[in-house]
Amino acid sequence: MHPRRVQPTLEVVVTEASIDSAERYQRYGIPELGFRNYWYPAMTARSLGKKPKAVRLLGENIVVFRDGAGVYALQDRCPHRGAKLSPGRCEFPGSGSISCPYHGWTFDGRSGKLVAALMEGPDAAVVNKVGVKSYPVAVRAGLIFIFVGDMEAPPVEDDLPPFMADPAKFFSLSVGVEYANNWRSVVDNFPYDHHAQYVHRNSPELIFMPQLPFAQRITFEDLDGNNGLSFHALGGINKANFPGLGVFPRREFWRFLKPTGRANVGGWDQSKAFRLYGIKSQLELRLPSNVTVGRKSGEYSLVQWAVPVDEHRTILFNINCFRRNGALGELWNRLHYYSWRRWVHDWLFSGQDKTVIEASPPGPERLSRTDAGLVAWRRYAGENARRPPTKLAGLRDAS
Amino acid sequence: MHPRRVQPTLEVVVTEASIDSAERYQRYGIPELGFRNYWYPAMTARSLGKKPKAVRLLGENIVVFRDGAGVYALQDRCPHRGAKLSPGRCEFPGSGSISCPYHGWTFDGRSGKLVAALMEGPDAAVVNKVGVKSYPVAVRAGLIFIFVGDMEAPPVEDDLPPFMADPAKFFSLSVGVEYANNWRSVVDNFPYDHHAQYVHRNSPELIFMPQLPFAQRITFEDLDGNNGLSFHALGGINKANFPGLGVFPRREFWRFLKPTGRANVGGWDQSKAFRLYGIKSQLELRLPSNVTVGRKSGEYSLVQWAVPVDEHRTILFNINCFRRNGALGELWNRLHYYSWRRWVHDWLFSGQDKTVIEASPPGPERLSRTDAGLVAWRRYAGENARRPPTKLAGLRDAS
Amino acid sequence: MHPRRVQPTLEVVVTEASIDSAERYQRYGIPELGFRNYWYPAMTARSLGKKPKAVRLLGENIVVFRDGAGVYALQDRCPHRGAKLSPGRCEFPGSGSISCPYHGWTFDGRSGKLVAALMEGPDAAVVNKVGVKSYPVAVRAGLIFIFVGDMEAPPVEDDLPPFMADPAKFFSLSVGVEYANNWRSVVDNFPYDHHAQYVHRNSPELIFMPQLPFAQRITFEDLDGNNGLSFHALGGINKANFPGLGVFPRREFWRFLKPTGRANVGGWDQSKAFRLYGIKSQLELRLPSNVTVGRKSGEYSLVQWAVPVDEHRTILFNINCFRRNGALGELWNRLHYYSWRRWVHDWLFSGQDKTVIEASPPGPERLSRTDAGLVAWRRYAGENARRPPTKLAGLRDAS
Repeated sequence: MHPRRVQPTLEVVVTEASIDSAERYQRYGIPELGFRNYWYPAMTARSLGKKPKAVRLLGENIVVFRDGAGVYALQDRCPHRGAKLSPGRCEFPGSGSISCPYHGWTFDGRSGKLVAALMEGPDAAVVNKVGVKSYPVAVRAGLIFIFVGDMEAPPVEDDLPPFMADPAKFFSLSVGVEYANNWRSVVDNFPYDHHAQYVHRNSPELIFMPQLPFAQRITFEDLDGNNGLSFHALGGINKANFPGLGVFPRREFWRFLKPTGRANVGGWDQSKAFRLYGIKSQLELRLPSNVTVGRKSGEYSLVQWAVPVDEHRTILFNINCFRRNGALGELWNRLHYYSWRRWVHDWLFSGQDKTVIEASPPGPERLSRTDAGLVAWRRYAGENARRPPTKLAGLRDAS
Repeated sequence: MHPRRVQPTLEVVVTEASIDSAERYQRYGIPELGFRNYWYPAMTARSLGKKPKAVRLLGENIVVFRDGAGVYALQDRCPHRGAKLSPGRCEFPGSGSISCPYHGWTFDGRSGKLVAALMEGPDAAVVNKVGVKSYPVAVRAGLIFIFVGDMEAPPVEDDLPPFMADPAKFFSLSVGVEYANNWRSVVDNFPYDHHAQYVHRNSPELIFMPQLPFAQRITFEDLDGNNGLSFHALGGINKANFPGLGVFPRREFWRFLKPTGRANVGGWDQSKAFRLYGIKSQLELRLPSNVTVGRKSGEYSLVQWAVPVDEHRTILFNINCFRRNGALGELWNRLHYYSWRRWVHDWLFSGQDKTVIEASPPGPERLSRTDAGLVAWRRYAGENARRPPTKLAGLRDAS
Repeated sequence: MHPRRVQPTLEVVVTEASIDSAERYQRYGIPELGFRNYWYPAMTARSLGKKPKAVRLLGENIVVFRDGAGVYALQDRCPHRGAKLSPGRCEFPGSGSISCPYHGWTFDGRSGKLVAALMEGPDAAVVNKVGVKSYPVAVRAGLIFIFVGDMEAPPVEDDLPPFMADPAKFFSLSVGVEYANNWRSVVDNFPYDHHAQYVHRNSPELIFMPQLPFAQRITFEDLDGNNGLSFHALGGINKANFPGLGVFPRREFWRFLKPTGRANVGGWDQSKAFRLYGIKSQLELRLPSNVTVGRKSGEYSLVQWAVPVDEHRTILFNINCFRRNGALGELWNRLHYYSWRRWVHDWLFSGQDKTVIEASPPGPERLSRTDAGLVAWRRYAGENARRPPTKLAGLRDAS
């Protein structure tokens, strides 16, 4: 059993007064463009074909391309005349290089160095003298991860929930959806903030299950590795009489199913996920910006990862991680995902979040007891985010 | 007979030199976002169904909703986490409250106070401690009116042309169209500024009537109640020879009809509208931003109301007011409106205005004799607009 | 034979270091909105029918209209209430005037003066007291040219390549395409900058011809008239082995045709174009922003003219100039152009440029040996651009 650091956070939060827009995240040191020096999923591996692709991560324009067995990521701007590299192509297959579509300046995918200026001929003096920023790349769980930062990249495994990093035991099926919001509003939706009980209660996934308990007490503890928080929800009610208004929710006779999946809450300590696989709780937030929603069986976990595009846009990846359980079981999981879950959860359920989040423009906030998890996470993230060891170390810009 | 305060304004106007963009309205104290402390039509009553609706008035985001017999208007932003209330719903029908779609914070439609924080349970400490701004609402003439301002709202009747406020004698059929312009350019189009004679002369409504007289003399007098001006056009010509250019308009043989409706000008003092119903003139402008175009019969009046959305957008409501004249007469008016007038006037005729107004970007102006009415109105509006009695009185913001 | 001022520019360019965005053109005095005091093509003559047209040149809004035999260009804003004149019409055909669509203020197309205020009647005091800026207009080679500047306009012939100005010997077929870029990025694409060899090598026009030589030496000389540069490309290679990468281009068996058209390079001094018609080289850049790409036969020249719309938009006109060679020959040229060249060159070939140019957002640049022509042109243009004789002379604004 893991020792648990339960904190009386509910009391802390009540003192939060109305806070204006800029202060909302600034006071915790949570940057508008995302935490740098982390690995982020950029796209699914199978969406990258022979043509290079342009992505935008943390406000940086990046071209990602595939050549032979390698996947590479470079700054998407040729230093010569400023053309994007992403409409370019690999003129020398197998070399791991990409050529600018304007004059054929050719850059090494690994180092970013200019290795040829095609139209200037083989004796071009400029070769090896200039370059573009290169980004560390890793392919895991069917996703292409890119490290955006100013230091030496740690192993990508450091930034992944354990099961995502273990292809022998797990496989993943993912989809990314763009939100017209800053990434922080998307992450605010991750902790136990009691929105699920209200926003999703009539989603196809939950409509026939008992109403999830609300007005719970939220506690949390460090994840091993100092890169996240494990959340626990205690107590709560399913229904209440609100003075002067009436009962909420009203009697809903169609909620007759036994709770399964996400609705199967409570008693995590007795679950297989906890006892066999060491997953501390049903909800775990990790730096820089992802959440794991587990199942008691431990056979399936959903990871949601908010990837900052720029100040006003975010890609939310729904990463569905299944425990490998033989060829037939895996086939079943794939069928079930593509025919049902991708639509019902990744589209409809997540779409309910998207609707409210995109209708929450920046401005002041007035937090309350139910935001205990939110405040805990902001504080934790601001204090524990990875930072370069010294200010001058590890700059990878080759230019 | 009403005493008439005829002013020699034509001479005044000629002295106006070229005026730059900012000065155009600023010198008269006419604000960019509209005159505050007035009632404005926000939407037709029948366009508001069970779902709350978001509107923007004078730059403020407002949610309007219906619950039981009541219609309510609140600031469209939850103070908790900033979500819009307009995608929310009435969880307690009959209570006149709306719940935020994110965590169910529930606000009273009348006072704007937080009456429940659903997910925090009935004992939530935050209840009654916060709230949103609430707006006075009134339904008249088939329109939902909202008072936007910083003082106690007067009766809505104070801000309506008399016949609009009297459902026993009149009924109205309305439609609103968005202009991609500041509201002041739309109001500039209301006074007798001689644009009608030029812009609309070939509209379906006027094409078979004699050319309207131009180069008229414009005079005006106060409306009772100190909330507007009544305009009179005197004299004018229908045709002229312009030196070096030729005759305008050229002979148009198809103008053979007897003038009716708007084209039936002159002799207002002998009209039923004047003698029986006390309508002073064919054209009356009222604060904050509406115009009444009357008919001599007094059986019909058109009210056009320019409602500021924000700096760059305006909704123009065409409000067609018919005198009640028995069930058959009323049926005829409705049929005639929906089958003819809505298309020919509210769409085609008003569309001609929309085309020129939207093609008039801000910039300097160089007024002339024909703008006598425009200048009179600006001066009148700036001097007579309603203002809060003292600076601190009547703030309705409940937060 | 013309004396040739060959300059060792290749050495000059190598010293250019990375230059930031603002400096890129500023250091040469090349303005963001285009060189003023030049004639620019605004539209094809046949695209201007009876309805006035709005164009934007060098950031100025202009209405162009046709009345009788004349074509006129005026500032597209009525000084009265600010409406655009372009939705207006000629109320007095043959007078060369246009009337504002709002109140009929009527302006003379030649002088810009207000000649009538229709709705104010013939005795309007404002007539002849105000006006709008008028622009010199000329129709040449099937295009409407407008002079944008602050001085007396020189003859339009001064600003045209010689064959464009001579309708007895040449006729032209043109098309304009909008680029979402500043005009300077489009002009940067004109000199021999070795992009053609890379960008266009697989265009339908060049795909079956031998690869154009790259890594050439570029020299240039003044055009007669001090209004441009003639470029010469010397030497170069068609293929090379790039160390560590391989051969570029790879063997392409389908390049079996004899070079014709643009691909027929070298030996210009022996060409008919040079000997009979005095065209100095295959590539000539002229102020303010056009390039002529010639053919050795002298029977055809392509002129590309980058016309600044505003900071962020440019129209590139492809002007195809054919030497008149009898009715049958002319018919053939027209058929060939409309059935083949307009599609293959003006659409597909130029579309390849458009793709890379629009994907080159502003930012620093790092020029190289192959940009010798670019640097020479920038320097030349900045030094030789036409400027008003004195600061106060030649203002044409009639207001």
